[in-house]
Amino acid sequence: MSAALLHRLKPAVSVASRVWSCKPPRIEPSSAAASVRLYSGLMEPRAPLFRQLFESESSTYTYLLADADSREAVLIDPVLETVDRDLQLINDLGLTLKVALNTHCHADHITGTGLLKKKVFGLKSAISKHSGAAADIQLSEGDRISFGKHCLTVRETPGHTDGCVTYVSEDEGMAFTGDALLIRGCGRTDFQQGSPHRLYESVHKKIFTLPGHCFIYPAHDYKGQTVSTVDEEKKFNPRLTKTLQEFVNIMNNLNLPKPKKIDISVPANLVCGLHDV
Amino acid sequence: MSAALLHRLKPAVSVASRVWSCKPPRIEPSSAAASVRLYSGLMEPRAPLFRQLFESESSTYTYLLADADSREAVLIDPVLETVDRDLQLINDLGLTLKVALNTHCHADHITGTGLLKKKVFGLKSAISKHSGAAADIQLSEGDRISFGKHCLTVRETPGHTDGCVTYVSEDEGMAFTGDALLIRGCGRTDFQQGSPHRLYESVHKKIFTLPGHCFIYPAHDYKGQTVSTVDEEKKFNPRLTKTLQEFVNIMNNLNLPKPKKIDISVPANLVCGLHDV
Repeated sequence: MSAALLHRLKPAVSVASRVWSCKPPRIEPSSAAASVRLYSGLMEPRAPLFRQLFESESSTYTYLLADADSREAVLIDPVLETVDRDLQLINDLGLTLKVALNTHCHADHITGTGLLKKKVFGLKSAISKHSGAAADIQLSEGDRISFGKHCLTVRETPGHTDGCVTYVSEDEGMAFTGDALLIRGCGRTDFQQGSPHRLYESVHKKIFTLPGHCFIYPAHDYKGQTVSTVDEEKKFNPRLTKTLQEFVNIMNNLNLPKPKKIDISVPANLVCGLHDV
Repeated sequence: MSAALLHRLKPAVSVASRVWSCKPPRIEPSSAAASVRLYSGLMEPRAPLFRQLFESESSTYTYLLADADSREAVLIDPVLETVDRDLQLINDLGLTLKVALNTHCHADHITGTGLLKKKVFGLKSAISKHSGAAADIQLSEGDRISFGKHCLTVRETPGHTDGCVTYVSEDEGMAFTGDALLIRGCGRTDFQQGSPHRLYESVHKKIFTLPGHCFIYPAHDYKGQTVSTVDEEKKFNPRLTKTLQEFVNIMNNLNLPKPKKIDISVPANLVCGLHDV
């Protein structure tokens, strides 16, 4: 690890302590009525500004969230190839990008975090401390990333990789699940410390315990779906509705090809997407 | 036109008269505060259930809207290839699909409307009466399509084609603009009755007059963007922010290739996407 990188990691402590400033999460009732109401896209009156963006080569979703008053913004899972598009939108909307977050160390694309740090003065990167990747902020269970009056809370959801996390909005109305939970699917568990047992436990204990109306925003979709809910995945996910043993059998017999970009992406993503950091 | 097709067109009048039953639209204040608030994804407390879906070959967005109480649903711009995906979601969510709407007679893909009609008993199709296409409901300016307690109002927005319409939610918080207005772009005007003069007038008089916070949901996006707002397009659309004459010059000099599927799509879409209707 270079001296420059170590230097960059130092601000992590002060930023990490600051991120605890937002209000504690309020638990929504998980009644059928609330579920229906929030299926409809209804969010808290002071909900964050929100944009979902797509990168078509790797079918990756990037998420922009911002506080409408302070204009502070965070970007979840930026992709190297779409950094300029994302920065243009951030500029158009008059936002200040504070933190670029990754849900995990991706194998299918190179993160845009490193390039964003080169282009945006003061931007911090964040990823799970269990990912093994370099970042300004090394995240653990329960950590919160603030942007204006809003925050995202970290839930550790390993299984696809050791360092997978889910970011949950303060009202528990939105969960950014990375590759832990996809719409009617989940991330593979056959490389990068993958473990079907751990993934099953993560999803059931950390995601399916969120309110039923909570929107699921995954890192990928390959069928043109954009969003789901906890209730929907608990009912219709063809893998996670199975027993643990059935799930393990499914995951151990997928026989998927090796990701095309894994030998490039993982080493790059361990250093923020830029080999020359 | 076959006898069977004529027979199917008859119910149009009764459906069209029924669609006027929902409450008249309420105009939101277009203040900066409201704009910021609604940028955030905030919708009316009784907002419809809403899903955005994507078809990657033609980069087409399909939109599902439903009433959370009655479970009545409408589908805007379905694509032939993704009909089964859309029906699966409609089934999972426990919805009853009442009307399949097209924003216009598409040149780049075959509509899923005809196939949906074969698969969903009682489903009605709807398109502008100026499109020249067959449908159960022939729409005109001001017509409303009801689903439960919600409705969409038709605004005629010709220019890309003669029969282009924009569907606007009752609170004027969402506009489904088809190819009239895209995110930072617009539909081409060099075939199918295209007219840059008419398109410019349509966007400025029928879309840019909506509240600034109104979300713009286009029929296509080619850069992974999912939504914009009236305010954003009024400020940042590189074509529609120009004068009429500059816009006409831009549109008349795009020199775009002929759409690959136009010779298949347009004849098919004139008969609901199925040649054998």
